[in-house]
Amino acid sequence: MKGFLITFEGIDGSGKTTQANLLYEYLKVKGFDVSLYRDPGGTPLAEKIREVIMEFSMDPITELLLFESARSSLVWEKILPDLCADKVVIMDRFIDSSMAYQGYAKEINLGTVSILNHIAIRGRKPDLTIILNVNLETALSRIRHKKTKFETPELLKKVRDAYILIAHSEKERDIRIVDANRDKEEVFKEIVCIVEDKLGV
Amino acid sequence: MKGFLITFEGIDGSGKTTQANLLYEYLKVKGFDVSLYRDPGGTPLAEKIREVIMEFSMDPITELLLFESARSSLVWEKILPDLCADKVVIMDRFIDSSMAYQGYAKEINLGTVSILNHIAIRGRKPDLTIILNVNLETALSRIRHKKTKFETPELLKKVRDAYILIAHSEKERDIRIVDANRDKEEVFKEIVCIVEDKLGV
Ligand SMILES: Nc1ncnc2c1ncn2[C@@H]1O[C@H](COP(=O)(O)OP(=O)(O)OP(=O)(O)O)[C@@H](O)[C@H]1O
Ligand SMILES: Nc1ncnc2c1ncn2[C@@H]1O[C@H](COP(=O)(O)OP(=O)(O)OP(=O)(O)O)[C@@H](O)[C@H]1O
Ligand SMILES: [Mg+2]
Ligand SMILES: [Mg+2]
Repeated sequence: MKGFLITFEGIDGSGKTTQANLLYEYLKVKGFDVSLYRDPGGTPLAEKIREVIMEFSMDPITELLLFESARSSLVWEKILPDLCADKVVIMDRFIDSSMAYQGYAKEINLGTVSILNHIAIRGRKPDLTIILNVNLETALSRIRHKKTKFETPELLKKVRDAYILIAHSEKERDIRIVDANRDKEEVFKEIVCIVEDKLGV
Repeated sequence: MKGFLITFEGIDGSGKTTQANLLYEYLKVKGFDVSLYRDPGGTPLAEKIREVIMEFSMDPITELLLFESARSSLVWEKILPDLCADKVVIMDRFIDSSMAYQGYAKEINLGTVSILNHIAIRGRKPDLTIILNVNLETALSRIRHKKTKFETPELLKKVRDAYILIAHSEKERDIRIVDANRDKEEVFKEIVCIVEDKLGV
């Protein structure tokens, strides 16, 4: 297999950006050729689509299609070329966010989400997915200063449960649930252990 | 069936906008409750997506997903409510444009285009589709003053052929090929004849 694709997933405030950055720096120091992208984002077009999603209100199917457009742009322009160049690619959110938010929480047919994910990623699934599992109260207290589009407690609860379901249903993938209620360093220690095992370090 | 959905298709310069406008005015005078939208477009979000498609260059899959996002927004916000209110809805381009341009001409898997069309339109297919079939030279001479993203002669030739294939392959739909090389009034006379027959006027 060429390259290695690691995705961080979890509800708002679970620590995805924090842990993705820590892992990026860690692997770079270890001598790996690493990229880090956020989804939606990572190309000028995908960042533009991200802005559009934030600016307009819309129905869930349209929202899903826009997320998949941004993902498709990033996959085509960055992720596939990076993997082809044998890089480690770290993603701050990816396909499971669409499944959890648009599928389970907003109740779009899961088959529809799955097909759209497949089209956007050209069938290239993550090699490792880390779900940062956190109590709702902890997450909300961490992000109480931020305003995002998705952080009503009811929705976040559904999303949190959805991630656990995804981890248990996608048997052919390697999806790890990490307790992210602990402090950053403890969480990161467990992630390093998982990643080094997978990379054969 | 509630409402009536008429779509105009054809290559750039075939006369879609011209004929769609003529039909809109004609049916209004006849006392019909009519709407006319362009695709992509017709909602603030869809018009924004249209701008983004024009502004950025991108791979065909991303482009297709963006077209489908815009279509989904229009279908959800306008077309389905209008049809539900028993209106005649006239579309300047719709699903067959994606099939012809992104599918046949840009060679995205036709099944992929078909699934995305189905998701965006929520399964609500057109009741009548009019393909304005025009010689390449005629079309190019009509639009020589305009600059659009899609008008290389090679691509337009593929798209022209694709529309004919679509008309012959989607047997369960009513798709009419109209000779659009003739002058506007003659073309419109044939369209009125087809539409009045379908509407039972
Ligand atoms: N384990 C932790 N313990 C305490 N605070 C943390 C922990 N991890 C992250 N934080 C803090 O919580 C906030 C949210 O973390 P972060 O931005 O990494 O979450 P996120 O999952 O990326 O959220 P979002 O989905 O909103 O982008 C930040 O201020 C971060 O410093
Ligand atoms: N039958 C016709 N004969 C001559 N000129 C025509 C005819 N139909 C349309 N035109 C002219 O050709 C030009 C292109 O027509 P129109 O804009 O309706 O095409 P279109 O299919 O909507 O193109 P596009 O896909 O670029 O929007 C316009 O200037 C229009 O006035
Ligand atoms: Mg983050
Ligand atoms: Mg036009």
